[in-house]
Amino acid sequence: MENFRKESDLLGELNVPIDAYYGVQTQRAIDNFKISGQLLSSYPYFIKGLAFVKKAAAKTNYELGLLDESLYFTIAAACDDIIAGKFHEQFPVDMIQGGAGTSINMNANEVIANIVLEKLGKNKGEYEFCSPNDHINLSQSTNDAYPTAIKMGLLQMNEGLADRLQKIVSAFRAKGEEFQDVIKMGRTQLQDAVPMTLGQEFEAYAANLEEDISKLNNNADLFVEVNMGATAIGTGLNAPVGYADLCAKNLARITGFPIVSAPNLVEATPDTGSYVIYSSAMKRLAVKLSKICNDLRLLSSGPRAGLFEINLPPMQPGSSIMPGKVNPVIPEVVNQVCFKVIGNDLTVTFAAEAGQLQLNVMEPVLSHAIMENINFLSNALDTLREKCIVGITANKEVCLNMVKHSIGIVTALNPYIGYKQSTQIAKEALESGNSVYNLVLQKGILSQEKLDEILDPKNMLKPHNK
Amino acid sequence: MENFRKESDLLGELNVPIDAYYGVQTQRAIDNFKISGQLLSSYPYFIKGLAFVKKAAAKTNYELGLLDESLYFTIAAACDDIIAGKFHEQFPVDMIQGGAGTSINMNANEVIANIVLEKLGKNKGEYEFCSPNDHINLSQSTNDAYPTAIKMGLLQMNEGLADRLQKIVSAFRAKGEEFQDVIKMGRTQLQDAVPMTLGQEFEAYAANLEEDISKLNNNADLFVEVNMGATAIGTGLNAPVGYADLCAKNLARITGFPIVSAPNLVEATPDTGSYVIYSSAMKRLAVKLSKICNDLRLLSSGPRAGLFEINLPPMQPGSSIMPGKVNPVIPEVVNQVCFKVIGNDLTVTFAAEAGQLQLNVMEPVLSHAIMENINFLSNALDTLREKCIVGITANKEVCLNMVKHSIGIVTALNPYIGYKQSTQIAKEALESGNSVYNLVLQKGILSQEKLDEILDPKNMLKPHNK
Amino acid sequence: MENFRKESDLLGELNVPIDAYYGVQTQRAIDNFKISGQLLSSYPYFIKGLAFVKKAAAKTNYELGLLDESLYFTIAAACDDIIAGKFHEQFPVDMIQGGAGTSINMNANEVIANIVLEKLGKNKGEYEFCSPNDHINLSQSTNDAYPTAIKMGLLQMNEGLADRLQKIVSAFRAKGEEFQDVIKMGRTQLQDAVPMTLGQEFEAYAANLEEDISKLNNNADLFVEVNMGATAIGTGLNAPVGYADLCAKNLARITGFPIVSAPNLVEATPDTGSYVIYSSAMKRLAVKLSKICNDLRLLSSGPRAGLFEINLPPMQPGSSIMPGKVNPVIPEVVNQVCFKVIGNDLTVTFAAEAGQLQLNVMEPVLSHAIMENINFLSNALDTLREKCIVGITANKEVCLNMVKHSIGIVTALNPYIGYKQSTQIAKEALESGNSVYNLVLQKGILSQEKLDEILDPKNMLKPHNK
Amino acid sequence: MENFRKESDLLGELNVPIDAYYGVQTQRAIDNFKISGQLLSSYPYFIKGLAFVKKAAAKTNYELGLLDESLYFTIAAACDDIIAGKFHEQFPVDMIQGGAGTSINMNANEVIANIVLEKLGKNKGEYEFCSPNDHINLSQSTNDAYPTAIKMGLLQMNEGLADRLQKIVSAFRAKGEEFQDVIKMGRTQLQDAVPMTLGQEFEAYAANLEEDISKLNNNADLFVEVNMGATAIGTGLNAPVGYADLCAKNLARITGFPIVSAPNLVEATPDTGSYVIYSSAMKRLAVKLSKICNDLRLLSSGPRAGLFEINLPPMQPGSSIMPGKVNPVIPEVVNQVCFKVIGNDLTVTFAAEAGQLQLNVMEPVLSHAIMENINFLSNALDTLREKCIVGITANKEVCLNMVKHSIGIVTALNPYIGYKQSTQIAKEALESGNSVYNLVLQKGILSQEKLDEILDPKNMLKPHNK
Repeated sequence: MENFRKESDLLGELNVPIDAYYGVQTQRAIDNFKISGQLLSSYPYFIKGLAFVKKAAAKTNYELGLLDESLYFTIAAACDDIIAGKFHEQFPVDMIQGGAGTSINMNANEVIANIVLEKLGKNKGEYEFCSPNDHINLSQSTNDAYPTAIKMGLLQMNEGLADRLQKIVSAFRAKGEEFQDVIKMGRTQLQDAVPMTLGQEFEAYAANLEEDISKLNNNADLFVEVNMGATAIGTGLNAPVGYADLCAKNLARITGFPIVSAPNLVEATPDTGSYVIYSSAMKRLAVKLSKICNDLRLLSSGPRAGLFEINLPPMQPGSSIMPGKVNPVIPEVVNQVCFKVIGNDLTVTFAAEAGQLQLNVMEPVLSHAIMENINFLSNALDTLREKCIVGITANKEVCLNMVKHSIGIVTALNPYIGYKQSTQIAKEALESGNSVYNLVLQKGILSQEKLDEILDPKNMLKPHNK
Repeated sequence: MENFRKESDLLGELNVPIDAYYGVQTQRAIDNFKISGQLLSSYPYFIKGLAFVKKAAAKTNYELGLLDESLYFTIAAACDDIIAGKFHEQFPVDMIQGGAGTSINMNANEVIANIVLEKLGKNKGEYEFCSPNDHINLSQSTNDAYPTAIKMGLLQMNEGLADRLQKIVSAFRAKGEEFQDVIKMGRTQLQDAVPMTLGQEFEAYAANLEEDISKLNNNADLFVEVNMGATAIGTGLNAPVGYADLCAKNLARITGFPIVSAPNLVEATPDTGSYVIYSSAMKRLAVKLSKICNDLRLLSSGPRAGLFEINLPPMQPGSSIMPGKVNPVIPEVVNQVCFKVIGNDLTVTFAAEAGQLQLNVMEPVLSHAIMENINFLSNALDTLREKCIVGITANKEVCLNMVKHSIGIVTALNPYIGYKQSTQIAKEALESGNSVYNLVLQKGILSQEKLDEILDPKNMLKPHNK
Repeated sequence: MENFRKESDLLGELNVPIDAYYGVQTQRAIDNFKISGQLLSSYPYFIKGLAFVKKAAAKTNYELGLLDESLYFTIAAACDDIIAGKFHEQFPVDMIQGGAGTSINMNANEVIANIVLEKLGKNKGEYEFCSPNDHINLSQSTNDAYPTAIKMGLLQMNEGLADRLQKIVSAFRAKGEEFQDVIKMGRTQLQDAVPMTLGQEFEAYAANLEEDISKLNNNADLFVEVNMGATAIGTGLNAPVGYADLCAKNLARITGFPIVSAPNLVEATPDTGSYVIYSSAMKRLAVKLSKICNDLRLLSSGPRAGLFEINLPPMQPGSSIMPGKVNPVIPEVVNQVCFKVIGNDLTVTFAAEAGQLQLNVMEPVLSHAIMENINFLSNALDTLREKCIVGITANKEVCLNMVKHSIGIVTALNPYIGYKQSTQIAKEALESGNSVYNLVLQKGILSQEKLDEILDPKNMLKPHNK
Repeated sequence: MENFRKESDLLGELNVPIDAYYGVQTQRAIDNFKISGQLLSSYPYFIKGLAFVKKAAAKTNYELGLLDESLYFTIAAACDDIIAGKFHEQFPVDMIQGGAGTSINMNANEVIANIVLEKLGKNKGEYEFCSPNDHINLSQSTNDAYPTAIKMGLLQMNEGLADRLQKIVSAFRAKGEEFQDVIKMGRTQLQDAVPMTLGQEFEAYAANLEEDISKLNNNADLFVEVNMGATAIGTGLNAPVGYADLCAKNLARITGFPIVSAPNLVEATPDTGSYVIYSSAMKRLAVKLSKICNDLRLLSSGPRAGLFEINLPPMQPGSSIMPGKVNPVIPEVVNQVCFKVIGNDLTVTFAAEAGQLQLNVMEPVLSHAIMENINFLSNALDTLREKCIVGITANKEVCLNMVKHSIGIVTALNPYIGYKQSTQIAKEALESGNSVYNLVLQKGILSQEKLDEILDPKNMLKPHNK
């Protein structure tokens, strides 16, 4: 028992580990929520977000005359310690908890209060000198501090995700340039269509993903609107006049993000719309990534009984029974991450719909699902780029041969002989096994010279005039 | 105004079309719910379900002395008319409505009452002789009659779905037999694996789908448990003692399904568990069907730049620009139906979760989503069978050639030369373009006779002893 | 047989109804796709979209010298007839089809060709004078014309949705003003929190939904980027130089929308990202609407055993068994629409993920799901506004009484007596049934005057300084 | 470098930590898949499943003469060590990986081989004495061993889940008995309906959840069907005749589960149907649990401005700003787990649909999602039972008062005075604020004696005869 100190709250006394910076309410949360085993302590940007918020609140309280200068400075220093990463292990609350974030907000309040007490030369738990509720949480409620901290966390995490997305776009683009002379068959509905280059295909992947950088960033921009000053339900009870705007300004200064106060705090407090649409933007990225990985696996299928247009770098033996088999393990893992992202987006949807009246109590699972998605996607993007995209090579001969034997090139004849006659040629080629080229010549429909020009794959890669 | 008659209810008077068998409450529903444009009138099995329920209730009321014989017989005759399909156009309520089905229950009550009045030589609306509430709805509430009618509808509709599933299983099985000698490469992770027959592949589709017949039927069996006699919330207020069991027995006699009364009517009334899991069973079928259609599109890809192992029957020209192109349009439409089924399953999930206290008010959209799924899937199964599966042909030569040139057959050497040496052969084959067969001979690892025996594809299609 | 004319295509001859403006390929689609029963003919904006596209293409072909003037003018006139709504019944293709939209594109090509033929005094089917493929589809493929037509349809439909959203925002706002003096308890986690006004609550609904007008519009703006000129796979094969940009300009002139050509047509052709995120924006709206409807049902619960703060206008008798019961049927139906919207969004997600290589073949179900969502949501918004929101009244006394008896008002004491002492008061109030007001007085903690000022609900509705 | 040993595979040499029991292929997986940070090592039942499978395979190989007795016994002993939990930390592969489980299968093969080597007095990595591929993986492929191990894991985990479900059913049932005399208003559509007891309500929760025990178990029963002997694609290549059945029998003996061999191994190998439907069964449970938790939060709402029929045990202070507030944090966290379960079920759906040809390569994320769901649900059930259900108390007076003042009791008059007259009474009661009881007396419709009998709440709790 000597390893514990006693703290008390509404429900009575409780033992807290004697060295813990967190206090009684965090301890209750540890006891109450043994759910996912995934703890706040492993989400450093979220913890930083909490410290940003608490520092901004303290600064605002100080500037509005609610906190004396010396205590403010000590609180700010405590927050800076957390921002610097010194106390992450003091945040042991399960990411999935009840209470709409109260446990996490109180975890931050308690840790900061005890760091302050330490700096003041007091013992942990001597909250009469600095109270988690009356000083650290001053002019705040969980219902404004907690979602604001989530948003500060997400703004940071989005930067990392967008950065990784930019890097993989560059990697695809580089491959697009490398493969610009590799002529291959395009396919629609998995059927041979008309020629293109492998470079066009990879540049299209780059262009496709590139759009999502701004899509992510634009939707993350919604997170700059915060509800500090809302207190319990947006009416601002117990926050002083002017607090909301000033706190937003202070938060902007501290974080470097262009934070503003939401125009209607009663609306903003239960609203989860920004999470929903940011999660949707990640879902869109996942849908695109999954499609691209499906393509990569298809294009590299074979080696003898597949398309075999490209080679992915071999990363590990592919089979415990089939010697020499190499599988597209990197696109495969990325596909799976995408499915997880889509699943988590549904969790977000359910959590958002379940909001009631003046609060959405499901924010913990909602924020956990989004943060998990950012982490998984970030890891997947790096993995895909480093271990797959940069090492892809083309089987140029394989690609060209498929063009040469294709029937789809008959399309290029339309402008010269009409859709109906082209159809006849195509049909005969398919049934006889003969080539389009030979059939047109045999039938004397076009001169060889004209035909050579029309059917030169290079002439099929972009619009041109007759 | 002469085209209308006046009826009244709690909210006052309302015009109803003079010839309508439905009455004031149906008219309110028409006015209130202009949502999906998809009307009850296009769900004949649901309407039959309502008539089954009302007939069973009337019989039970009669047998328990609450309804006199003559009125009972007239009500029963009216229900039989509806069961025979004579009044379907009298059910114009939008499938998506508020009110937890009250509008649909009252639609049935009103139509039956007016048919009865007609049989009694009375005018429509003279409810003093036969009242929608006091006679047709006697001993019932929407909260028992409506879900029971849904279940009667679903039991019938499931039979149609299971029947169509059986038919497509037979079609796949017939193809499995037809293709039993077509040797081809199996593929795992889209990479060449080891040989199999196309017949094994199609028989596997048959076996895979066949499991879902019993899966659907077993889950539909949950629908035989009904809550007639629950009245408003399961306590059976206003239903006579013995009603619940007797009504279930009568419903069983009338429908031919083994209907039983739920053991706990308070539990059964808000419960949507049977819908959730039946919808899940359809989702499982959709997932399997979608996978199979993906395979069919992949196996028929080409004709020159794809796998081209099979040919799907051409159903329509494939392109407005590419002459001669034929696309796998039937599997494509089935894939899309599967995606719709999965989407509707999510609608069911949300609707089920939204139940509160003694009722789930979201049953209309829930039942609509399930019935739409049954209809779409039934149509898709028939379409897939008739317009695709039965006409599939094999490209035997293409299939065999891929086996001959494959590296994957090296796997068969493991038991003779070990995984490690097999790996070396495979690696060398891939890099040199040489065949496994030649490499083994050149290296003198096995005799040609032994090698011929091991690498004979026929010997690779099933387990065998050295 | 005299009621039919014969037409032929790649697959041979087929009977087409003699009066039909559509031709052989539409007829094949009718025969092939009996799936949902939901036909293109009931999606007028989509049909208009097709006509816009065909007109713009014809204009561009004419301006680039590929189509002679007289035929161009006749084609344009035919398109104008369709835009004016004259031929909608000639579009009988099931909305869920295989073929990636080829059937719908050909339906438009055939109908326009036959209108042209009629204008030219020719018989239907005399395609040598005006061919669906060579003239109407000139310089196009399904793969550019079809998605562009979808986008033109969606741009129009979004305008209707956004307009209805604006109207319901105004209705909520008006109620916000009407209820600005109705003081009530705010609730977080369904537990009594602190006071607010009913006006603040309704204004918050207005503000919450208002954000989604721009969210919808911004995401619909993605639809202005089209891939006309891409032809089959984005390489522009068979389209003349300059066609893509000029066609976009013409489409802009014809539609009034600021249409532009996608910067990378190979990327744009299989991309479904704009659909995914627009669908997500509708999902976000659905999530918000569902939450609001949940609130409305909760706030109007009762009349004697619920919160009963507001009254929704009674729309129909609520029960077939419980006399006098009136249910919140309008919010209920809106909740259900929201669940359908979320389900369709999942269908969109699956369809988008299933794109392969140079095309997404699942666009029919994808566009159907989105268009169904727009229609359902539009209907739901009008229904909710007209039949519910505008008629809501407040139970002012009920609201005030709950504030008077609440414990949550103790929160306002924090700044005066600290969180710890407030907690003691609250605990004692709860356990004893005594009021916060009396307890503070009894204990002599604050003067009655001060207490009256602090606990005046009006002082709790916004921030204020001590 | 001395801390490593060198191992090699198809891709060349690699350093492995010198003390690691795992080998080169596990090391590659560690390097390749830094995705979720959630490692196989934290899924002990899965690891046990792998050891069961490897032991059964070794036994079968021994009995069929492919493995000598001494090596078999050593392998079996190594597997027993793992089953006993001695080597869990040797399974460091990320749960989300590419390669369709090859990394996990090889992780098991390598760890077992090295334990064997140790028992044989050899050094780690001296695979010529016992090879991961040739001995531990003998007659197997990842494609049979890996899914079988998953199933063995799930069978064990399901037992834990079903057990916890049984316990919470008992807890609800005990409350049902405790509250059997607490009369309260039932509610449909959140509107007052007719009386019931709180005991009926809690017993209904028990009955509702109880159904899911067998639902879970029945669906888990599908996992007893395994595809051992399938090897790579179900054809059984390299497995001896008789292996499949004998291995299933051995696995049954070792695990105690009634394992059988799938009737069609080509079908069984890529099939994920059992996962899909088991996941659906968990989703059904989640939907029910979430509904129940929604109810608990609603019934305990208040204390002064809510329903306040029951009290949940207070678990922690509810607010950082509102003193004395106690929130329903346990139901809240369970709701959130349910949303996570539903999200993971969607991940399973996507993963299952993505199977191609002879294998489903997405099994890692699929199995991870299911196992996460089992763990989260198990934790949530225990938490809900221990920290909430067992401590719930009733506010009997509050409940009874709402019945006394309700209008819904008018329903009981229907059989005596008809629906129409009852409606009038109800309407007048609502508008006047008068009670149903007084109105009936005032109007002289029924004698007081009769009325007292009819309106005695106790008479409304079940069917009765006039």
